[in-house]
Amino acid sequence: MFKHTKQLAYKVRVDEPNPIFAKHLQQAIGGVEGEIRVCLQYLFQGWGNRGPTRYKDMLLNTGTEEIGHIEMLATAVALNLEGAETSLQEEIAGKNGAVEAVLGGQDPRHVLSAGLAAMPADANGNPFNGSWVVATGNVGSDMLANVHAEASGRLLATRLWEMTDDPGMKEMLGFLIARDTMHQNQWMAVIEELGGPEKQLPIPNSFPQDQENQEYSYVYLGFAQDGAEPPRGRWTESTSIDGKGTFSLRPMEPQGREPDLGSARPDSGAQEGQIEG
Amino acid sequence: MFKHTKQLAYKVRVDEPNPIFAKHLQQAIGGVEGEIRVCLQYLFQGWGNRGPTRYKDMLLNTGTEEIGHIEMLATAVALNLEGAETSLQEEIAGKNGAVEAVLGGQDPRHVLSAGLAAMPADANGNPFNGSWVVATGNVGSDMLANVHAEASGRLLATRLWEMTDDPGMKEMLGFLIARDTMHQNQWMAVIEELGGPEKQLPIPNSFPQDQENQEYSYVYLGFAQDGAEPPRGRWTESTSIDGKGTFSLRPMEPQGREPDLGSARPDSGAQEGQIEG
Amino acid sequence: MFKHTKQLAYKVRVDEPNPIFAKHLQQAIGGVEGEIRVCLQYLFQGWGNRGPTRYKDMLLNTGTEEIGHIEMLATAVALNLEGAETSLQEEIAGKNGAVEAVLGGQDPRHVLSAGLAAMPADANGNPFNGSWVVATGNVGSDMLANVHAEASGRLLATRLWEMTDDPGMKEMLGFLIARDTMHQNQWMAVIEELGGPEKQLPIPNSFPQDQENQEYSYVYLGFAQDGAEPPRGRWTESTSIDGKGTFSLRPMEPQGREPDLGSARPDSGAQEGQIEG
Amino acid sequence: MFKHTKQLAYKVRVDEPNPIFAKHLQQAIGGVEGEIRVCLQYLFQGWGNRGPTRYKDMLLNTGTEEIGHIEMLATAVALNLEGAETSLQEEIAGKNGAVEAVLGGQDPRHVLSAGLAAMPADANGNPFNGSWVVATGNVGSDMLANVHAEASGRLLATRLWEMTDDPGMKEMLGFLIARDTMHQNQWMAVIEELGGPEKQLPIPNSFPQDQENQEYSYVYLGFAQDGAEPPRGRWTESTSIDGKGTFSLRPMEPQGREPDLGSARPDSGAQEGQIEG
Amino acid sequence: MFKHTKQLAYKVRVDEPNPIFAKHLQQAIGGVEGEIRVCLQYLFQGWGNRGPTRYKDMLLNTGTEEIGHIEMLATAVALNLEGAETSLQEEIAGKNGAVEAVLGGQDPRHVLSAGLAAMPADANGNPFNGSWVVATGNVGSDMLANVHAEASGRLLATRLWEMTDDPGMKEMLGFLIARDTMHQNQWMAVIEELGGPEKQLPIPNSFPQDQENQEYSYVYLGFAQDGAEPPRGRWTESTSIDGKGTFSLRPMEPQGREPDLGSARPDSGAQEGQIEG
Amino acid sequence: MFKHTKQLAYKVRVDEPNPIFAKHLQQAIGGVEGEIRVCLQYLFQGWGNRGPTRYKDMLLNTGTEEIGHIEMLATAVALNLEGAETSLQEEIAGKNGAVEAVLGGQDPRHVLSAGLAAMPADANGNPFNGSWVVATGNVGSDMLANVHAEASGRLLATRLWEMTDDPGMKEMLGFLIARDTMHQNQWMAVIEELGGPEKQLPIPNSFPQDQENQEYSYVYLGFAQDGAEPPRGRWTESTSIDGKGTFSLRPMEPQGREPDLGSARPDSGAQEGQIEG
Repeated sequence: MFKHTKQLAYKVRVDEPNPIFAKHLQQAIGGVEGEIRVCLQYLFQGWGNRGPTRYKDMLLNTGTEEIGHIEMLATAVALNLEGAETSLQEEIAGKNGAVEAVLGGQDPRHVLSAGLAAMPADANGNPFNGSWVVATGNVGSDMLANVHAEASGRLLATRLWEMTDDPGMKEMLGFLIARDTMHQNQWMAVIEELGGPEKQLPIPNSFPQDQENQEYSYVYLGFAQDGAEPPRGRWTESTSIDGKGTFSLRPMEPQGREPDLGSARPDSGAQEGQIEG
Repeated sequence: MFKHTKQLAYKVRVDEPNPIFAKHLQQAIGGVEGEIRVCLQYLFQGWGNRGPTRYKDMLLNTGTEEIGHIEMLATAVALNLEGAETSLQEEIAGKNGAVEAVLGGQDPRHVLSAGLAAMPADANGNPFNGSWVVATGNVGSDMLANVHAEASGRLLATRLWEMTDDPGMKEMLGFLIARDTMHQNQWMAVIEELGGPEKQLPIPNSFPQDQENQEYSYVYLGFAQDGAEPPRGRWTESTSIDGKGTFSLRPMEPQGREPDLGSARPDSGAQEGQIEG
Repeated sequence: MFKHTKQLAYKVRVDEPNPIFAKHLQQAIGGVEGEIRVCLQYLFQGWGNRGPTRYKDMLLNTGTEEIGHIEMLATAVALNLEGAETSLQEEIAGKNGAVEAVLGGQDPRHVLSAGLAAMPADANGNPFNGSWVVATGNVGSDMLANVHAEASGRLLATRLWEMTDDPGMKEMLGFLIARDTMHQNQWMAVIEELGGPEKQLPIPNSFPQDQENQEYSYVYLGFAQDGAEPPRGRWTESTSIDGKGTFSLRPMEPQGREPDLGSARPDSGAQEGQIEG
Repeated sequence: MFKHTKQLAYKVRVDEPNPIFAKHLQQAIGGVEGEIRVCLQYLFQGWGNRGPTRYKDMLLNTGTEEIGHIEMLATAVALNLEGAETSLQEEIAGKNGAVEAVLGGQDPRHVLSAGLAAMPADANGNPFNGSWVVATGNVGSDMLANVHAEASGRLLATRLWEMTDDPGMKEMLGFLIARDTMHQNQWMAVIEELGGPEKQLPIPNSFPQDQENQEYSYVYLGFAQDGAEPPRGRWTESTSIDGKGTFSLRPMEPQGREPDLGSARPDSGAQEGQIEG
Repeated sequence: MFKHTKQLAYKVRVDEPNPIFAKHLQQAIGGVEGEIRVCLQYLFQGWGNRGPTRYKDMLLNTGTEEIGHIEMLATAVALNLEGAETSLQEEIAGKNGAVEAVLGGQDPRHVLSAGLAAMPADANGNPFNGSWVVATGNVGSDMLANVHAEASGRLLATRLWEMTDDPGMKEMLGFLIARDTMHQNQWMAVIEELGGPEKQLPIPNSFPQDQENQEYSYVYLGFAQDGAEPPRGRWTESTSIDGKGTFSLRPMEPQGREPDLGSARPDSGAQEGQIEG
Repeated sequence: MFKHTKQLAYKVRVDEPNPIFAKHLQQAIGGVEGEIRVCLQYLFQGWGNRGPTRYKDMLLNTGTEEIGHIEMLATAVALNLEGAETSLQEEIAGKNGAVEAVLGGQDPRHVLSAGLAAMPADANGNPFNGSWVVATGNVGSDMLANVHAEASGRLLATRLWEMTDDPGMKEMLGFLIARDTMHQNQWMAVIEELGGPEKQLPIPNSFPQDQENQEYSYVYLGFAQDGAEPPRGRWTESTSIDGKGTFSLRPMEPQGREPDLGSARPDSGAQEGQIEG
């Protein structure tokens, strides 16, 4: 169960409202790299967690933190929309390119649908989509998903930081960037606690590896048209990262046959020429 | 530029066609964990790659491999649909639960829309969605995305392997599982080559960390209602994974104020009581 | 069955074509508050209606009216696109901010995909989505959905009205706003005819209320972290709106236990540490 | 800011796990009538609220309650999946229609993607979609949206209640149904506190009604092909619900002209015959 | 403007209600091959039509016909749901595979969301999507889209016809199949009237062909890995269908260079190694 | 199986980078008319092809060509983003309308999410959607889909050509337009090889036409409110295009009855008044 307090987790202040920046901030709310996604991701991982409960507690705890981040960003969007244009009337006259540019560049639905407030959508107005939420029941896979989610989240936040020179917004983003730093480290720490990539990979590590075709488990295959060797690197030599094989490389040649599905069935709605006579 | 050969990358054989398994296989084609996603992900990362070209070459090479995996799975779906029911007529009489169960359990669009062949959709018939493709221009973030994509892909493939006892399907999946083993290791190898998490984290590592609020960069914050201490672990003590801080923990208290957006503007479409008199 | 006449339901005239306004008008066609949604909503409610046929007739009648509103708005979009820019060539030189602002602010697909005409999409180019259509088979729930749909529709239309000073567009919107006034009243009139909220609530009123946990049926629960009392108002005192209970309030405390899903099954694809040894 | 406690808001117990019921329960989590939608809806309405803060407090408070409902239902789904089939192997033999029916009827992604846990998706596996969240900045419109959301939510919960005879599930649903009863009453109470439909309608009530075409504001228009009179009722006679007009009815005749968009522009990509010669 | 009559365009009768067939019929309502799509497609093409008005009239006329087809199919779905199972209770006991198979095979939202009626969704419960509607402002391209839409619609209808032995449903489908026959011919007749493919192709025919790279306009290029010749046929020899060239064939070799995007910009959020030192 | 070469299929050069044009180019990558769609469409048609293998070979060959077109366009987008604005800071001051217009008009996710590279999305940032891919198992229907896909693709490419005056972009588009010319002709050539519309129509031609209601197979029905005759043309007279009937026309009158679904079932969640007493 959850509870709420009226104070924000951290200061949110906008010195110069900017409706175009409001549009950009939407990416951090309802975008694939945004806070609704990580919030639901950690909560659903926690709610579906089987095995040691310590990770469940940790996931629900940090998932709860993220709801407060959505709250901060939603507030920031509303504050940035304070001075948004709600009329195209002057644009028709076309006197002032700068004003028009703002109007053309803001999200029309911030005026039309949301009444100058945030929406669960991204910077292009695409709605948040639940398919982005990763929660597989496999703690190794999910931790990797979480490290990546925080990497893409911090990347987005730093790009937003570069984009503005509003001191209030820079301060808020400086807090969120720091939390993304922690969360990247946090999910990596779980992987380390579980023995690191060597113990966790290949995911799922509960699948008996002698059932996979081990001829192909540690070889980098090349798909160059002229049979040229693929690029060499750490992935083509020495022990594999999971410590269970040795990297090698070779050009790939087809191992299967040309497939043939035969003629179409008479009851399948094909054209006459496709059905065996 | 790409070229094609008619032979499949690996053997695809179905001993006993099963239209319900065909539905499940769709997840590996058009699902969020599927091959269209990784294929486009590696190709778009390669096409947008800036910096050393070795990663670009590697990405395009493996992206090309994945097109061939889509091809294998699409063939497997078509073969599993060989004996699919295309009529509900006997079901009305209700003589044979087993036959009906197959019909109720298969994807109706395999008959109605695809004519007994594969679709770019998942096991619930949701179409593939381009928003799943991660390509950010940051090689560190993208490699994490790729390790995770292969982890969720191998997880899916092993679950499909458990689900069937068709020898041909088990052999095909045993090949794909092996490739996922390699690819998990491969993307981890790039991270290692780039100096490992210590050098790469926090992503993006080009952002000056003194601009983030470092008071919050390495502390695990607790959000328990009773102020209880959050779960301890590797993430609450010792040097952080990126080597740039020391983990600690403390319960969180709000650092911001209660936000107040004031009254609604007269021109914003609010109700009368919301607009300042 | 439906028939068509070539004349529009009401005058549609554009005095000064404005492609940015064309983009905004799209919200009223294919947006969640738009005419395709209400049109399909009333028609599907009518087609699925069980019980007294008077509501079915009424729904199909007004659903038919709404097709004509889509027609009006589609015409308005096409007329507003008369002078749209189809070339970026001058923008490259960057001489005239005003012209560029128009180009940057118009919907690129109005030129690229629609050839200067309307699309079944919203103001951000998101396609109309059938999931917005509410038709539940419960006349009480559906009437509430309809009142709300017309409220959000009139809200949108008045915001569009504020946005333009084109006399033709203002006249067209003045007609649509009037129809939304009527329709809000119309669906409320059905609720009144059915006995009002007192008789209709709680929806569905055919469910035996003694099967719900009545301890929680009329109490406003507080979720403040410090146990502070939640905000008082009409919802915390006196008889409930449905006349079947008395409002009260109290802070909420968890009534359930900490859930425990146990260990993961060996065949479920979890990591080794999650599976009971 | 939010906090979490490990105990559930209310008891969640499953006596006989049923994976088909797990699929049905998904509608109450990630469906258009589900808890993620109302949760985000109340939170976004609160975060964007302008005007008297009492409604903001109330919205955030009840939004917080709803996060706990998602938690309860996610737990219920996981418990119902305890005995789910993860193998199609016996189905191939076709011995037992009942077992097969369960497998055909369960959500394949519950096994393949979620590892026997809940997902932010509906009963057909469609992901939650942010476009369903209504938050307009107009408190009247939003309260109507909320009453409807709770009506459709309670309708769904009672249908789920009818569908199961598991005592634990019936008890959990009995709690959720009671909360939906309260919430329907609660949002209606706000409308009453604000003066009721008479004061609030037509929404938005801040728009000057003399700007709408009042000839059409309170007349029920008929669209029958034979000019027959439309169905009479409360909506065709007496004072309108908003008290600002008198209902009447009449058959509609087109008031506009046949639109003519003229010839296509030479630069618009039309076929030759469409462009003026 | 549109009008409605209560009688259906054609007889709709269901002799033996079948909820699984109801699910399949949804494809013809809200699927990509369904009636909502063609209805909106013809209407939007008509509303946006520039050039001779005869095609506009024709499009709006047939678009109006299609609304009545949605109505027929929505009625058919509701009638097929008459006896649908709304309870899983007996399934738990698992006595009767046939009954369970029906329940597992029906659309859960037909019970939970629609109350035994049709929805604007496809056979997998995916909502209708406005992006499927083709209306480009180019009459040639749109007519091709329409012929294809009717081809896929008739294909679907015949597959549904094969799937049922309900006499009422077969009769209704026999009517719809006939209309699809007409409409395929109808749109082809427009192409013929406009001079046929020879005059219309390549679409758009208003683009000056000397601006395209005519070396590549009529050659079938081969992309076989071993440089083998591509399959020969009508498309590799003789005059092209548009009469403006001669078909030939040759293997393709890359005509471009290896692209190089250089180093990443310092402000673009890339990792350190990607940014020029 | 597929292979890759590093050289592009054709030259891609950008003389003056233009981030707004980059946004427009996205339509040709991830839009409904774009290259990902045709690429997957031809590949899935080939992989699911039953009947003579010559069409399969041809489809896979051209599908392979299209992957290389995605590659060219992704490169073009990245090159056009070279000089994109990544900061709103100067816009706040509002000195230069032209610069601001560029920023307002570019895709915010090109900076925030993709790091100045292409995405699998359209010009409005809507992600590519797998539901656009047509592959039905019926070669006649699919060829029509393909002709139309190339028509809409060429239409888009010529509109992009009109939009730019960058010589490099015009050259690249001139190549793509030529390929669309070929592909339109190519799919038409298959139809001709198969006997032309006369032999192929009505699709599917394997359905026995005496099972359709032939009274309605070749008549153009009129749906004008006043019973006026519908527009005459090639579709109302002479032999039908498929040569199997004679066109005629007549106004349509309803052939069905007013449907009546009766009362609601007590267990269906309807309101009390809807359920038979």
